[in-house]
Amino acid sequence: MQSELIQSPLYKILNPDSIAIFGASNRFTSMGSSQLASILDLKFKGRLYPIHPKEKTVQGLKAYRSVEDLPEVPDLALIILPTHLVLDTMDRCGRKGIRHAIIISGGFKEKGREGIELENRLIEISKRYGMRFLGPNCIGIVNPYKELNTTFLPYTAKPGFIGMASQSGSFITQMFDYLSKFNLGFSAGISVGNEADIDVVDCIEYLAHCPNTRAIGLYLETIRRGRRFIEVVQETVKIKPVVAYYVGGTEAGKRASLSHTGALAGPDELYEGIFKQAGIIRAYSIEELFDFCWVLGSMPPMKDNRVVIQTHSGGPGASTADACERAGLKVTELSQETINRLKKFVPNTGSMQNPVDLTFMKNPAHYLLNIPEILIDDKEIDGMLIYFLLSVRHIKSALEGLKVPKDQISCYIKSFIEDHTNSLKKMINNKKKPIVGFSYRGSEDQFISELQKRGIPVLPGSLRATRAMWALYRYSKIKESMENGKDK
Amino acid sequence: MQSELIQSPLYKILNPDSIAIFGASNRFTSMGSSQLASILDLKFKGRLYPIHPKEKTVQGLKAYRSVEDLPEVPDLALIILPTHLVLDTMDRCGRKGIRHAIIISGGFKEKGREGIELENRLIEISKRYGMRFLGPNCIGIVNPYKELNTTFLPYTAKPGFIGMASQSGSFITQMFDYLSKFNLGFSAGISVGNEADIDVVDCIEYLAHCPNTRAIGLYLETIRRGRRFIEVVQETVKIKPVVAYYVGGTEAGKRASLSHTGALAGPDELYEGIFKQAGIIRAYSIEELFDFCWVLGSMPPMKDNRVVIQTHSGGPGASTADACERAGLKVTELSQETINRLKKFVPNTGSMQNPVDLTFMKNPAHYLLNIPEILIDDKEIDGMLIYFLLSVRHIKSALEGLKVPKDQISCYIKSFIEDHTNSLKKMINNKKKPIVGFSYRGSEDQFISELQKRGIPVLPGSLRATRAMWALYRYSKIKESMENGKDK
Repeated sequence: MQSELIQSPLYKILNPDSIAIFGASNRFTSMGSSQLASILDLKFKGRLYPIHPKEKTVQGLKAYRSVEDLPEVPDLALIILPTHLVLDTMDRCGRKGIRHAIIISGGFKEKGREGIELENRLIEISKRYGMRFLGPNCIGIVNPYKELNTTFLPYTAKPGFIGMASQSGSFITQMFDYLSKFNLGFSAGISVGNEADIDVVDCIEYLAHCPNTRAIGLYLETIRRGRRFIEVVQETVKIKPVVAYYVGGTEAGKRASLSHTGALAGPDELYEGIFKQAGIIRAYSIEELFDFCWVLGSMPPMKDNRVVIQTHSGGPGASTADACERAGLKVTELSQETINRLKKFVPNTGSMQNPVDLTFMKNPAHYLLNIPEILIDDKEIDGMLIYFLLSVRHIKSALEGLKVPKDQISCYIKSFIEDHTNSLKKMINNKKKPIVGFSYRGSEDQFISELQKRGIPVLPGSLRATRAMWALYRYSKIKESMENGKDK
Repeated sequence: MQSELIQSPLYKILNPDSIAIFGASNRFTSMGSSQLASILDLKFKGRLYPIHPKEKTVQGLKAYRSVEDLPEVPDLALIILPTHLVLDTMDRCGRKGIRHAIIISGGFKEKGREGIELENRLIEISKRYGMRFLGPNCIGIVNPYKELNTTFLPYTAKPGFIGMASQSGSFITQMFDYLSKFNLGFSAGISVGNEADIDVVDCIEYLAHCPNTRAIGLYLETIRRGRRFIEVVQETVKIKPVVAYYVGGTEAGKRASLSHTGALAGPDELYEGIFKQAGIIRAYSIEELFDFCWVLGSMPPMKDNRVVIQTHSGGPGASTADACERAGLKVTELSQETINRLKKFVPNTGSMQNPVDLTFMKNPAHYLLNIPEILIDDKEIDGMLIYFLLSVRHIKSALEGLKVPKDQISCYIKSFIEDHTNSLKKMINNKKKPIVGFSYRGSEDQFISELQKRGIPVLPGSLRATRAMWALYRYSKIKESMENGKDK
């Protein structure tokens, strides 16, 4: 895997040890300056060489008047210059011996005829020197494991396991905060822009071999190398899942993506067919793409489609059951053995049907450990959906009501959270069946946050949790058919 | 309107001046105690009479040994007692002259044959005294305008404009925090439980006349009075929109709701037909229900289905365009006049097609005022979707980068937010066309939060915003056909 990773044209782009930066200055409002600020903010450990015609230092770094003046041949050129300067800069980088570039500048194919011509000349120059490049008209990359972020927004999430290739830069950068809300992050995020050289297919190949990536997400407005795309994905899904969100399928989506990245989108049915053949799980919003990647990257596989729902509220239970059936999951009846084992934990007011509705529980350990363990043990159950209602604020106000001293309360809450999240996590590891939580609270609640941090997905709402669980089931089926050499 | 409101059996339940509470004690862990704590927490201004066999005071209030000892006939009895005590309590309340009750206790119809019998006797008793009651097996009500919350969770949201009747108590109480995240709240929330007496139809009639309610949300697992339901909704939608989320339509949903409230759900197509005939807008998750109510309750009507999308990022623009088309909204081309007017504001890198993609803007006033105003002025446009990327953190770090002194920064941000949210709000009021915002940030960002507080909906993500905009369009069509006396 490692050697295939290093051979990827993206390897030095995502893992450079030295970068020449064109376009950064000391004026904070200029584009290139934000990118350099993001790089500095994430504390990149490699060598940085700002190229500036006048300044001696840029953002505290020694600046160089031209690429020719650099003391070494950097691994990567990061170009954020006005369009008319890009070609010459690439040429000089090539002559210097630089073999990888990210071209953030726009004004190429997406701008019509003249831009197409410029882009063709860009390709010519890169070929002349054997250079590989990302862009133009992209936003760059983020690789939190290399502490590198070349986008114009600071990376606020943690290093994560979602590898993303996107035909929209926004769906990389503008997701930093979004992902961090769920205690998620990118393993690598790649904005491909116009794909004049490196394209989504290259990204998938890189991410397939990237050891930090457990699930691959694609935002697509078009596919440029159809046949190769299918082949690469078919190989990839044998080792990790690929999720795609495609928006060029409608007339309005098509027009929008044409003006966005000059992409020629195809009809929805065509892409649906490609996705099926390739073994891609299709998402219908950017949130769903991340939901799917989240659950696929953190849970064991789901062998079949039989789920059990555990709730302490009827409404969330019934709505989850309804959502399961709509998604193609089966809310099966529990075996008599399971019901017998459950009896001592389920209160009078509760229900031992599926959804298992526990109503009010005095002992949270029953809800968070004993009962899930019994349910997941059922041989007729392939996965479990759990509703999390309990919040730290509730526990706190309950303890305050019982007149427990303040210092004891925070201590109690801390160990409560640790004990329960750890034991639930251990249980999932032992049982090797997936559990997906859902709640109408988010990570602002410490309990939800700690569950998420320990790798237990807790999604916002039952519909999203159910759809993500379906993705797990779907991936099992895809893997099965790919391994059998059949398309499904 | 006021007289019809007062005649509703729910009027004294939602607006009592005095309440007898059965089941509250000084033990914090008991059910009734939480309800009393919630009432005290919201600072109910009426008179509260806890009934307790032993205690002299309950949670600081003078307690009474029995209902007979009360110094007045309270407007409402709130009963949170073990099942076997409920019938006798109702009988004694009736004899005392109490005419309205909320029965939170469970153990009735939802428990099968024996429970059905108990519930029938409950109905007999209430009829004997001419009493009207909510429940049993419900969670009570919240009326923030009367500062009254009889549920077991504290009401954390603001008084709002969403009137909700729910066959799940959870979808009232567990939504308090959820709604407050969007700066929303209930005008009235009613958990109907088993609907032994007062049912959803009564709730709709009340909410139709409730002056604080601008949109009605229903969570349904069944409909008990089909014909009357349709008639009442048909009248209601002439004055305000009704949104329903129904989960009994699948086999799994049906089974779940049977054990939940003893409801006999019907097939999905039947309910779909009822909703169409009645003029209900159907939501497919609880989040969607609130999204729809939010936008319907805060925006002017949308005459036809032609939308313009304003974005500063291609991906969010393209995905919104795609979502619009899927939802049945039309992303029309802009008129030449509009394009001419736009020219001076849109940068080179931007696009004046629809979606209007402004890429990077130096002057936020252009994005937040000038451009939306031009777009919404277009006669071929019925509504507008705006993407909000800008965050207070970005403005702050930009100003810090420009070395603006700290105290000036916070001052600048404050007036920035006030000016822009106010002028956008004013513009919507003048133009009388709906604007729906979306963002991948939430109200943790002060700018988003202030927009929401001023009544401009900013929804999480483009798909949800688009679906909610569709609901606006749908409502116009419903109203039109109802006013013409036709069903559509």
